[in-house]
Amino acid sequence: MIDVLLKKEEKIDDLQLRGLKIIQNPTQFCFGIDAVLLSDYSLTSIKKGANVLDLCSGNGIIPLLLSAKSEAKNITGMEIQADIANMAKRSIEMNELSHKIDFICDNLNNAFTHFGRSSFNNITCNPPYKELGGGIINLENSLTIARHEVKCTLEDIIRVSSELLEPGGKLCMVHRPERLIDIICIMRAYKIEPKRLRFVHPYYNKTANLILLEGTRHGKPKLFLDPPLYVYEKSGIYTKEINEIYER
Amino acid sequence: MIDVLLKKEEKIDDLQLRGLKIIQNPTQFCFGIDAVLLSDYSLTSIKKGANVLDLCSGNGIIPLLLSAKSEAKNITGMEIQADIANMAKRSIEMNELSHKIDFICDNLNNAFTHFGRSSFNNITCNPPYKELGGGIINLENSLTIARHEVKCTLEDIIRVSSELLEPGGKLCMVHRPERLIDIICIMRAYKIEPKRLRFVHPYYNKTANLILLEGTRHGKPKLFLDPPLYVYEKSGIYTKEINEIYER
Repeated sequence: MIDVLLKKEEKIDDLQLRGLKIIQNPTQFCFGIDAVLLSDYSLTSIKKGANVLDLCSGNGIIPLLLSAKSEAKNITGMEIQADIANMAKRSIEMNELSHKIDFICDNLNNAFTHFGRSSFNNITCNPPYKELGGGIINLENSLTIARHEVKCTLEDIIRVSSELLEPGGKLCMVHRPERLIDIICIMRAYKIEPKRLRFVHPYYNKTANLILLEGTRHGKPKLFLDPPLYVYEKSGIYTKEINEIYER
Repeated sequence: MIDVLLKKEEKIDDLQLRGLKIIQNPTQFCFGIDAVLLSDYSLTSIKKGANVLDLCSGNGIIPLLLSAKSEAKNITGMEIQADIANMAKRSIEMNELSHKIDFICDNLNNAFTHFGRSSFNNITCNPPYKELGGGIINLENSLTIARHEVKCTLEDIIRVSSELLEPGGKLCMVHRPERLIDIICIMRAYKIEPKRLRFVHPYYNKTANLILLEGTRHGKPKLFLDPPLYVYEKSGIYTKEINEIYER
């Protein structure tokens, strides 16, 4: 663990995973359970030696988790917001993971200035969930950019992923159920066939509020639905499966 | 209740719903829980006085259930197999429902010889679930036709429905999760926006094995996911919700 400078309002959180730590700034971006579930769901498809890209990477939570959980050779994070990308870069340095994790600060629509086509085996993405409505006042606010499709749309993510993935490569996303139809139709339009789908329910008798979806570039149509994932046994108490995911 | 002739191997089953009975032939077609769940799921959108069409209607189970459960003015069943359509017609007669239920024996691809465009408020369909693979020997077998896309495909159903529904009209289907991606993409391609989705799980911790999906012709994109529907509490014991659906 290397000492790094913390900026105003930043803090260091312990990931409770092989000594990993992460810099966060509660006024800008803190990772949530969706990032943890996405990294876990993507693991099934990340083979030993894989070259992995994480789009909309925020403070680098997913590259950090995957560096510990997967056998990927290299993981690259890409994030458009300079302040947040800078936190990610310092976290990577702090954890002495610069040999394994690259981090790029740019708009994903510029991906081809950094990477060749078909150059990744896996892409993960925990994107902004909300479409850009008319009522948003501050389009340059950091939280607005993290939550709304200000700088990139779902279609941008899927279009760029389709070109960056090798044939047979996987795009794994977490999103809200209300966008399921859009994700599915856009994936198929860009030749990424949705193959694995899992719904995440807060409780066993509640409607799912997150989806985990993985598509395969040039995959054959046939969806494999996973059993439902329940987050809470009762208020404040995680289910056994969620505890296992956090400990994996 | 009017007496009707039964053919060889046919039997009369009591629907346990306002005295309704149905003719079935176990060697050809018997309705299952999917028909019961579909009719229940479609009820939310069937308004008083609605004109309803049931495609792939089999022995008429869905028109019979909807005649009792909904306030539709008229329900039309359409089934390609003559023997099975004949059972449906005799069931309608037996239940004295000829004033409310019409039944047509034809390929749904001929729908426009029977109905005008935009002439239905609601369409229901419990279609053959399986795509036509290469390994099917007897394409004229009655059970093969009921289960496989021999006489019509998913795309036929959705294309024809899109033309038969009024703008704002609803197509409600039951299907297998493995075809979810196809259904969603084909619906959207034919301007039927998937709006309501419910997964049916045999047990609360098991993967869903049926989906209920309703699309709206010219609907605005935004999916409403329903809470999961669990069929069994434990082996052989229905959940409270399933019992309520059967009794509704």
